[in-house]
Amino acid sequence: MFMDVFPTSEAASTDLLAGKTVLVIDVLRATSTITTALANGASQVLPVLTIKEAHRRASDFAPDTYLLGGERKALKIPNFHLDNSPRAYVREVVKNKTIIFTTTNGTRAINRALSAQTLLLASFLNARAAARRAWEAGKDVYLLCAGTRGRYSLDDAACAGMLLQYLRKLQPGAQLGDLAYTLLHLYRTHRKGILQLISQASHYQRLVDMGLEADIMYCLQENIYTAVPRWDKKQNMIVL
Amino acid sequence: MFMDVFPTSEAASTDLLAGKTVLVIDVLRATSTITTALANGASQVLPVLTIKEAHRRASDFAPDTYLLGGERKALKIPNFHLDNSPRAYVREVVKNKTIIFTTTNGTRAINRALSAQTLLLASFLNARAAARRAWEAGKDVYLLCAGTRGRYSLDDAACAGMLLQYLRKLQPGAQLGDLAYTLLHLYRTHRKGILQLISQASHYQRLVDMGLEADIMYCLQENIYTAVPRWDKKQNMIVL
Repeated sequence: MFMDVFPTSEAASTDLLAGKTVLVIDVLRATSTITTALANGASQVLPVLTIKEAHRRASDFAPDTYLLGGERKALKIPNFHLDNSPRAYVREVVKNKTIIFTTTNGTRAINRALSAQTLLLASFLNARAAARRAWEAGKDVYLLCAGTRGRYSLDDAACAGMLLQYLRKLQPGAQLGDLAYTLLHLYRTHRKGILQLISQASHYQRLVDMGLEADIMYCLQENIYTAVPRWDKKQNMIVL
Repeated sequence: MFMDVFPTSEAASTDLLAGKTVLVIDVLRATSTITTALANGASQVLPVLTIKEAHRRASDFAPDTYLLGGERKALKIPNFHLDNSPRAYVREVVKNKTIIFTTTNGTRAINRALSAQTLLLASFLNARAAARRAWEAGKDVYLLCAGTRGRYSLDDAACAGMLLQYLRKLQPGAQLGDLAYTLLHLYRTHRKGILQLISQASHYQRLVDMGLEADIMYCLQENIYTAVPRWDKKQNMIVL
């Protein structure tokens, strides 16, 4: 079993991902939010790339059965029900709803990995369960970090390292690609200070400046969910 | 002063590099070889992207004033004088010659950085001097790793970390981007075992399998040269 990491969506080779297991990571905040929504009873999440497409797809659903969620520049989109704060996706709001969802980096990363045989969404919130599900699929595992505006991002990198730590426990002989080796080491030497590590991320400072520190604290909680969102190819939806 | 790293040529934003200082890194082996050639008295190095272009440019030079050097798939190119082994670029061979040079990853990385105000070539062989020259230029510094076939490569990453270590000593308050932070940490925690670190690289194993271990040992020597190759915009050449 071979395991490696792509630092951004743009860096990911769709050819290489075809038929493999892919864990998409967008810690701050898309995969944390989608995991929260599904863990709290949302029936499915439909990721779309554009705001226009979100509205177009919404017309397929009866009113009160769906919610529009996501962000542009980390802010709520006008006329959407929800922003990209995972803390907004509580049970009372999302239960049995379809979430039509668009974010800057996260939905692009999911889109990039559609050729995978098994496409799972990971974050700190569900890392242990996500690693196990990826391992159970029995294929090479690629971790696809969403990154931030096309650049490598420490928050996703730290989470990739944590996932690799779990994956290597499950498959001690797994071969690691160069970036996988780097991020497993980064995680192991920072595991007792993940917040301190992530506070070095340029993305972190931007979110703090926008008053989103509570979201960050939420997203850094480890293994509070066993829910692992997966892409369902037949439905073209993210489900549990 | 801001410092960051691009993991591959493809990841580098030419817009972002414009007007900045760029250190191109291709440890195994292009920047190590070019540094060796110039340190050993080659008059200039002309990097080209294709074999065809190498022959075309050669016709501008009198016989015996130039050498064709480089590799494809790590091997010597037919009808070229030299391969990409830095150990072949000894003084008796290269003195006062123009080297017309093409490699798979290295020349592409150089090409990607032509918008830089100051474009320097770095390797373990000249890291301390290269960091100082980059710092003296007084602009933001981007380290552009050539990578291996479009992927992040541990050998270049380790050298980037070493360069950042020197750069931070020269400019203690420098702000680091996310990948710069990661690779500085990688270097600091492996500085006593760089060979062991680089032996994890997939590229490393490929070169060893091809019998190129002596090249690797050569390229891992630290600070044996103070020569820092730079791109001369007027001549369109790499010179000292």
